[in-house]
Amino acid sequence: MSETKCVGAQSVCFRSDVYVLGRAAVVGKKEGEGPLRSFFDVIDTTDMFEGENWNDAESRMMQKAATLAIKKAGLTPKQVRMLFAGDLLGQLLASSFGAGELPIPFLGVYGACSTMGESLMLASMAVDGGFADCAEAVTSSHFASAEKEFRFPLAYGNQRPLAATWTVTGSGAIVVGNRTALERCRTQREESAGTHGRIVPPGVEVVVAGGTVGKVTDYGVKDKANMGACMAPAAAAVVEAHLKDFGRTPEDYDKIITGDLGAVGVKIFADLLGQKGYRVESVQEDCGLLIYDNELQDTHSGGSGCGCSASTLAGYLLDKLYEGEWNRILFVPTGALLSPVSANEGSSIPGIAHAIVLERKQEVR
Amino acid sequence: MSETKCVGAQSVCFRSDVYVLGRAAVVGKKEGEGPLRSFFDVIDTTDMFEGENWNDAESRMMQKAATLAIKKAGLTPKQVRMLFAGDLLGQLLASSFGAGELPIPFLGVYGACSTMGESLMLASMAVDGGFADCAEAVTSSHFASAEKEFRFPLAYGNQRPLAATWTVTGSGAIVVGNRTALERCRTQREESAGTHGRIVPPGVEVVVAGGTVGKVTDYGVKDKANMGACMAPAAAAVVEAHLKDFGRTPEDYDKIITGDLGAVGVKIFADLLGQKGYRVESVQEDCGLLIYDNELQDTHSGGSGCGCSASTLAGYLLDKLYEGEWNRILFVPTGALLSPVSANEGSSIPGIAHAIVLERKQEVR
Repeated sequence: MSETKCVGAQSVCFRSDVYVLGRAAVVGKKEGEGPLRSFFDVIDTTDMFEGENWNDAESRMMQKAATLAIKKAGLTPKQVRMLFAGDLLGQLLASSFGAGELPIPFLGVYGACSTMGESLMLASMAVDGGFADCAEAVTSSHFASAEKEFRFPLAYGNQRPLAATWTVTGSGAIVVGNRTALERCRTQREESAGTHGRIVPPGVEVVVAGGTVGKVTDYGVKDKANMGACMAPAAAAVVEAHLKDFGRTPEDYDKIITGDLGAVGVKIFADLLGQKGYRVESVQEDCGLLIYDNELQDTHSGGSGCGCSASTLAGYLLDKLYEGEWNRILFVPTGALLSPVSANEGSSIPGIAHAIVLERKQEVR
Repeated sequence: MSETKCVGAQSVCFRSDVYVLGRAAVVGKKEGEGPLRSFFDVIDTTDMFEGENWNDAESRMMQKAATLAIKKAGLTPKQVRMLFAGDLLGQLLASSFGAGELPIPFLGVYGACSTMGESLMLASMAVDGGFADCAEAVTSSHFASAEKEFRFPLAYGNQRPLAATWTVTGSGAIVVGNRTALERCRTQREESAGTHGRIVPPGVEVVVAGGTVGKVTDYGVKDKANMGACMAPAAAAVVEAHLKDFGRTPEDYDKIITGDLGAVGVKIFADLLGQKGYRVESVQEDCGLLIYDNELQDTHSGGSGCGCSASTLAGYLLDKLYEGEWNRILFVPTGALLSPVSANEGSSIPGIAHAIVLERKQEVR
């Protein structure tokens, strides 16, 4: 029987190292004008990615991110054994069509805007469990396809309340692999200098060390223009479970970074954890608040969407780890399990969040 | 580093035994009138499962199957460490709301009607990889919620072409676990006689032995009333890859059972494999053709939907394995990656399928 990798009530710890081999962040115009602009690999100022319509644009963006992360790892798509991908559209439209162009076994996942957490967790489990030398996690969202799916036609020009967030046009892709895959990549990476993001000091690697799978959490909030409030309880619950399972405090992390709680959600998140005795304010960040300048860019409560946390992780967050500014972070993408049907039927909006531990490793080569 | 469990180009083999601990099949009226009626645990002749609308009905049906499989295993929901679930509705509406009532960490998956293959594969990987003692795979579909989502309002009463399939109102749930979980279940199962389906001869177990993850396959078929033709190429491709990876022939399986290719799709499937030198006719079955009496029940090309293969597996197929009529089967649920948006935009319908090996084990106790 396999050695257990279970920790506490709902967490897992990866016993063999699961390395980040490659990563790519591909975004649209607005994201390319925001504070993280220098951390993205590709900025398409047309938002169309040469696609024929918004869904097609999102598929192509996702495919570009998936392909680029593989290339930056020094691999070919055929060397990637499993692709875990998802997006916000019904029936995972963007991922299904995007993945159709890639010769990689495909597993579609859905956790709304928490999808990068789920896909990265499953890709890491596939590697650590011995099911893949190398696996990829990709997620995407597109402002125009999401507005059309969930809210109003763009041409209608509805006014957005201040609690609303702005769906990020972006895709993030991460290739993870075991030691064997890392060794293979290192050779190939060295042949093509500078292909692994901006900065990789020799011997520095980032590993996915473990994580906590979240439960669906429903506080009964029904306002789809205030998704931060819908998701904050799920984020607080998974972080609490994580800290308990690992016997850690918030200070054991350089940063605890939620996905897209936005200006309203982060306060609720901190309050809920405060009630449980965990003070997170000093280490707390939110991808939705990092990706835009809310005042200059008029994004109200911040960014949201699968692509928000995914592109921030693949760009900014991993850069900070490689650079050594941080040594260990908890990445907590958050999802609102909202469907146009459930919302129109007046149902509440349950939330979900997963927590992933990413650590910097300085190796003696 | 973990021992590799990769086989060939795209398959995995589980090294520690992954046992089926519990299972449940919950279906609607039409399925309860079909040839497999005696293999289902619950038949709700109202199709409503005490829900308020069709989506709610599907959530409750899924929840009933999930809960019953856990109970039949002799476990409580809190003992299940991960729930992999998905359905056909946009944003996994049925699963998200169904899972919200269960205290189990949740990972949403989507592979259209192949979802039971994906969820069972991932649950088994979670167990074999040491990430969970015990995990559950559940999927569902509901005729009324699916018609509303993908085709026409029921009240419109449109005529269906003969190549069309009938979406099954059903949910199948399988709890898998490692040896430790099995031992625990055995004690509890013995306390409550007859809770593990109809027939479990002492010492007989069914294990998930491995499988092959499929790729998105698109032959350009655009007819959403002929999904068998859309999915058959993906099913043939994954079976071919599986047989190559494991160095097997179709005769190494007592049955190769596709999900919902229907009357049209199974012929294409057999033809495509025949062209590659594999004769599958003698061992081939299709859940879509097993679940209804197409002549008496007027279902045209057969049953379809996530719930078709899931409820047939949890009921009929596993019974045949426990009974000893079969010793090894290849379960190949098939999915058409169709969204209402992509279909209305005139896109083709890509297919996907995964292949899972299930084996009977007679143990000396």
